[in-house]
Amino acid sequence: MNRSAYYVGEQSFVVEQSSPEPPGPGQVRIDVAYTGICGTDLHIAHGAMDQRVRVPAVIGHEMSGRIVEVGAGVEGHRVGDPVTVMPLDWCGECPACRAGHSHICHRLNFVGIDSPGSMQQSWTVPARILVPLPADLSLAHAALVEPTAVAVHDVRRSRLAAGEHAVVIGAGPVGLLIGTVAQATGAEVTVLELDPRRRELAAELGLSTVDPSAVDVAGYVQEVTGGAGAEVVFEVSGSAAGVRTATDLLAVRGRLVVVAIHPTPREVDLHRIFWRELEVIGVRVYEHADYVEAVRLVHGGQVPADRLISRIVPLAEVAQAFQALAAGGDVKVLVDCGGNA
Amino acid sequence: MNRSAYYVGEQSFVVEQSSPEPPGPGQVRIDVAYTGICGTDLHIAHGAMDQRVRVPAVIGHEMSGRIVEVGAGVEGHRVGDPVTVMPLDWCGECPACRAGHSHICHRLNFVGIDSPGSMQQSWTVPARILVPLPADLSLAHAALVEPTAVAVHDVRRSRLAAGEHAVVIGAGPVGLLIGTVAQATGAEVTVLELDPRRRELAAELGLSTVDPSAVDVAGYVQEVTGGAGAEVVFEVSGSAAGVRTATDLLAVRGRLVVVAIHPTPREVDLHRIFWRELEVIGVRVYEHADYVEAVRLVHGGQVPADRLISRIVPLAEVAQAFQALAAGGDVKVLVDCGGNA
Repeated sequence: MNRSAYYVGEQSFVVEQSSPEPPGPGQVRIDVAYTGICGTDLHIAHGAMDQRVRVPAVIGHEMSGRIVEVGAGVEGHRVGDPVTVMPLDWCGECPACRAGHSHICHRLNFVGIDSPGSMQQSWTVPARILVPLPADLSLAHAALVEPTAVAVHDVRRSRLAAGEHAVVIGAGPVGLLIGTVAQATGAEVTVLELDPRRRELAAELGLSTVDPSAVDVAGYVQEVTGGAGAEVVFEVSGSAAGVRTATDLLAVRGRLVVVAIHPTPREVDLHRIFWRELEVIGVRVYEHADYVEAVRLVHGGQVPADRLISRIVPLAEVAQAFQALAAGGDVKVLVDCGGNA
Repeated sequence: MNRSAYYVGEQSFVVEQSSPEPPGPGQVRIDVAYTGICGTDLHIAHGAMDQRVRVPAVIGHEMSGRIVEVGAGVEGHRVGDPVTVMPLDWCGECPACRAGHSHICHRLNFVGIDSPGSMQQSWTVPARILVPLPADLSLAHAALVEPTAVAVHDVRRSRLAAGEHAVVIGAGPVGLLIGTVAQATGAEVTVLELDPRRRELAAELGLSTVDPSAVDVAGYVQEVTGGAGAEVVFEVSGSAAGVRTATDLLAVRGRLVVVAIHPTPREVDLHRIFWRELEVIGVRVYEHADYVEAVRLVHGGQVPADRLISRIVPLAEVAQAFQALAAGGDVKVLVDCGGNA
């Protein structure tokens, strides 16, 4: 049997049993080992995306597992293979797809939001979204490949180079991963974070941390960069203050990467953007190359998965896991979906 | 003798005679043929930059002329050579200069603003800022090289490619030059402009024009780009509405080039920047390669200088020229500085 956690609205989940869905042509069925809960999932559980997510819905897209059944016509994948998925399915025909940017397809199906996700034991998906995993990679660690791919994409779009200075505004899970990936690139990284627990974790990961409520951040960055400013700032706080700080910190030709989602327009210092020839760069999800790099970084330990996974809960306790995550204090919570045989 | 137009504050100029300044080591003396009046000069004349410009001041930096005297140690320049200048003098030592972005030097001397300019008959400048001109290029046309270099820089920073669609918001002199340079790149160009006289001129230059008060611009751009949106938008209006429109028009991975100076922060749709992975690119003045390309475009007629120069006035009438320009209706006004022998 398959056990699935259904989001049914207003922070409520029910776990129900059903028959596993046999894979059709071009599909595989996966026994899901772990599914991480991400910020978007939290948004969904709080009802913020009820217009887009039709209840009852199985959500979840940060996953790992093993193939247990292969549909007709699937090549290159075998039963027993450890896999994750890149949860994007695109039309291939819209202007974005035709321009080669299919990850921003005008009709993108984000698997786990727009179609059923992985918070269930048995998951049937198109083989084309599979990403193979190394045999010796822990499946719990592998659940961090998806958020790591986000960070890899953001750092890649920033064109951050070894020896450059990057500032990360906001040390939630995505900010910590960006800081870690930026550091693996050879950059000097400073993390700005108001919350002392998050600052502590960032410091444990080897990142320099600054409390922006206690320190003149612009002066600090000027000092550590020899008066130049930072080459890259990642805005991961989603706050108006974060946007304001970001343009102040950047060096001539510096790049501001807008990682957080800002639901309303923000005041941006366009004069500073002109004066220093800054760039503002939008980033959304990832491309296949980012996944390949993310697997490499998690597998090689440059992304310290153990330190980032703060809790693993059984599928039956998914509602409590969402509540704990919303309360703060956790970094990455994984749901054990039962397929980690 | 040398005749110079001095800005003395509050839209007033006086023309006075003095002895020409002999060139020191590394300098040349130029007989100035023409000096164009740019938007920044107009700002200065209206007192908006009195904190930076010390009166009495000779302003002007869009110029052409001939070398009449060469100082000690100057190589590669001879008396009689037609020249313009790239009016930037940098320190060579600040972080921006060391990073190779000397045109955005932290201590940039903008010649004609921070040091004496070319609204005079005889002008003595460092030979290092000279840019040679082809012998057969009209010196009146050559006065457009500087604003053309601005446009070349902006188009280059946009990475606009042949076949892409660009929208220019605002058809003042800079907007028209950007449209012209973008068209020379092989792009499809649409110019948005409220003023019917400016729209007419843009149309005469072969640019598609749209009145944004009469047309649903987003719908129009969707239609002419097959639903994709524009790859590049140049914001040359300096208005909050221009910034708002710009993000609405851009295709996935589109680039918004902030050309106009926005003195106060503007609301920017960061959600759209995330959703379509847009880029916002700041641009300031030019680099040497932009000057070389600008000379080529003016010389080859791709920049139709004759159509853009709406008036040539003698040095004695410079005050009236500023007034006429402020009143609107003119595109580019040149001051005949007397050196066009």
